[in-house]
Amino acid sequence: MKKLKVAIMGLGTVGGGTYDVLTRNREVIKSGYGVDVEVVKILDKSPKRLADKGASEKLFAANIDEIVSDPDISVVVETMGGLEPAGSFIIKALESGKSVVTANKELLSKRLDELLSSADKGGSGLYIEASCVGGVPIIRTLTESMQANRVTELTGIINGTTNYILTKMSEEGDDYAYALGEAQKLGYAEFDPTADVEGFDAAYKLSILASLAFHTRIPLDKIYREGISKITSRDIAVGKSMGYELKLLAIGRQNSDGSVQARVHPAFVPASHPLASVRGSFNAVLLKGDFVDEIMLYGRGAGAHPTASAIVSDIVYCAGKDRPQKNDFGSKLANVSDDFPSEYYFSVSVLDRPGMLSVISGVLGSHGISISKMLQENADGHCAEVVILTHMTSERLFRAAVAELRDVDGVLSVGSEIRVIED
Amino acid sequence: MKKLKVAIMGLGTVGGGTYDVLTRNREVIKSGYGVDVEVVKILDKSPKRLADKGASEKLFAANIDEIVSDPDISVVVETMGGLEPAGSFIIKALESGKSVVTANKELLSKRLDELLSSADKGGSGLYIEASCVGGVPIIRTLTESMQANRVTELTGIINGTTNYILTKMSEEGDDYAYALGEAQKLGYAEFDPTADVEGFDAAYKLSILASLAFHTRIPLDKIYREGISKITSRDIAVGKSMGYELKLLAIGRQNSDGSVQARVHPAFVPASHPLASVRGSFNAVLLKGDFVDEIMLYGRGAGAHPTASAIVSDIVYCAGKDRPQKNDFGSKLANVSDDFPSEYYFSVSVLDRPGMLSVISGVLGSHGISISKMLQENADGHCAEVVILTHMTSERLFRAAVAELRDVDGVLSVGSEIRVIED
Repeated sequence: MKKLKVAIMGLGTVGGGTYDVLTRNREVIKSGYGVDVEVVKILDKSPKRLADKGASEKLFAANIDEIVSDPDISVVVETMGGLEPAGSFIIKALESGKSVVTANKELLSKRLDELLSSADKGGSGLYIEASCVGGVPIIRTLTESMQANRVTELTGIINGTTNYILTKMSEEGDDYAYALGEAQKLGYAEFDPTADVEGFDAAYKLSILASLAFHTRIPLDKIYREGISKITSRDIAVGKSMGYELKLLAIGRQNSDGSVQARVHPAFVPASHPLASVRGSFNAVLLKGDFVDEIMLYGRGAGAHPTASAIVSDIVYCAGKDRPQKNDFGSKLANVSDDFPSEYYFSVSVLDRPGMLSVISGVLGSHGISISKMLQENADGHCAEVVILTHMTSERLFRAAVAELRDVDGVLSVGSEIRVIED
Repeated sequence: MKKLKVAIMGLGTVGGGTYDVLTRNREVIKSGYGVDVEVVKILDKSPKRLADKGASEKLFAANIDEIVSDPDISVVVETMGGLEPAGSFIIKALESGKSVVTANKELLSKRLDELLSSADKGGSGLYIEASCVGGVPIIRTLTESMQANRVTELTGIINGTTNYILTKMSEEGDDYAYALGEAQKLGYAEFDPTADVEGFDAAYKLSILASLAFHTRIPLDKIYREGISKITSRDIAVGKSMGYELKLLAIGRQNSDGSVQARVHPAFVPASHPLASVRGSFNAVLLKGDFVDEIMLYGRGAGAHPTASAIVSDIVYCAGKDRPQKNDFGSKLANVSDDFPSEYYFSVSVLDRPGMLSVISGVLGSHGISISKMLQENADGHCAEVVILTHMTSERLFRAAVAELRDVDGVLSVGSEIRVIED
């Protein structure tokens, strides 16, 4: 029986969940995997937090040095979150030769090189399954199951908060503010929801996942990001009537010339798309590879216990290794294209007078954009609302066409610009 | 750069696909994972099969001894299928210290102990990702991602042939024989389709997957098995009108007393169930664990390239190991219960006379079975057809009630007994 002594840094939601798993399922892990994992130190602000969690206060560590100086500890779990002091603590642990298991997507996406070089320095392994999409085994799948493939696409619903909000808006017709309030009441959204609703959280994860999938580094600041705070329940209802569900997607694509696309934005997907039926706080990631074709992983993307499940899976995984894990992020910076082809949904308010539709389609046509569907609504003799679905076009052409449309005489406004992903 | 010399035994569909991956993506694997995999021997009936595949005839091996006696070969891929000679060849390779990667579910489910003991004897690893559900990384997920959990449930659509047939019957109203014929034309079904349509193939996989999930051995002959050949398009249409899709499910459950259920049978699932939308030849497996909650993996369960993707993933995975893989099948024989709770759908033909419904519900009630839905159809003054959905009951009680119903005066026949899985 292999024995493993572990320290946990940060006994909050996920750290507490990890403590739960390691105490409640210690025997399950021993009998199933032959590893006896023991929590021997917990770093937190005060011993009281340990007592609240039912952990012995003897485990309390007041500072990082108590952990890195303990030669018995081989794995350090970081569940503090945020950039500092989590970053310095992880670096100390790695450089002192300890394996680190972390759920810290923000830190990984912002300071990956620094962490990897500390791991190299200490000859240590850095284990990150819990950093992306909670209990869904997406990191393990990318590193241990896709080796035969050139991965061409990774598309995911990787933020539970926004998927919960969009599901409520779609299924119950709630408006954005109300659905956000409900998510906050249930603890799915923070008091300041910016990181989730504006797509930052999804971008952190996409930076990690797409770098692993394509073996080329995709820095956070190269990821196009657009959140859901401007989405209206009307957009969702109109899209639904046309056979689409609205989702906040994180999309990585490897183009045939080796350049990549990396973007987080709301998108309409057909109701028959595998991601369309991912509801509520569930997450899913769709991968395409040249030999495996299409695979999808689905599950709980957040929450104390699913995330702790991923952390503990990393602890046991690391116990089985004679050499530290190398993650195949690639070393070269990706060539991230800032234009990408898409179909678009958008609406135009116009004065209700003859010939407006022809003017609009003329402007689009002059930018090489053709229309796949057009729907005119609410014409009342004064104003009319036109909803348009385009065929595939580029970001740049679409922006140029919209800018020109805004100046057309009789056009009152252009809005609700939402991309459409057909497959 | 780690170099790995590999032999392939059997250059059929999957073996040929493996050769494709290893030649076409050799550079992708080198640059992404630092492993250079070279095919140095191919065992097949004649060198002509190699030539047909574009492989050099110099690679031809006429017998297993040419492979096991070659000290340069560290990994042997078995893609011959069937019990013999595949079994003896694998045993020779394992006992001579070579890692074996196999897609052979039938062999694994029938002779697992023998293979594991040969691996022990040779100090070799046995890698089986390709044996179950093609390109879907279900083995890796069970062995490397669920360690934190007591897995309580594994439910899957793990046979592509039957899912293709049932999808055709559901979406196009085809009858069973026609849909089977279409599947045969497309190469999804064999000339003799028994292994697929009667659930043998799914039972092989369930024996492997459930043993890994629950760490307790579930032999093939303990798995309850029922195929789809008696399903009618009318059953599917009536179920659909009640909000259900019909799927051939493989189900493993761990009861709280430690006993397990293991069964393959058609079942109605609600249209909102994650497995209901798995269409055509796609496969999916749903897992439940006490901490991770619910996860689902979805993808191509068969086919040359998806299966080859799994094989090559095992080759690269094995290259990263200093010690041979131990699969956590558990050593104890499972206590497999031969009764399991279920809801049922069934139909009763009765003489169209007053009081029949009350007699039927009386018989069910006397066995402790209550009715959740009842639908009477086609009453024509002579006969009527009654479709019944029960609440949860046991296999034994249901069989006893059906036997008694058949003897009731006025009951012409009882048929279409199909289980219902609500979640």
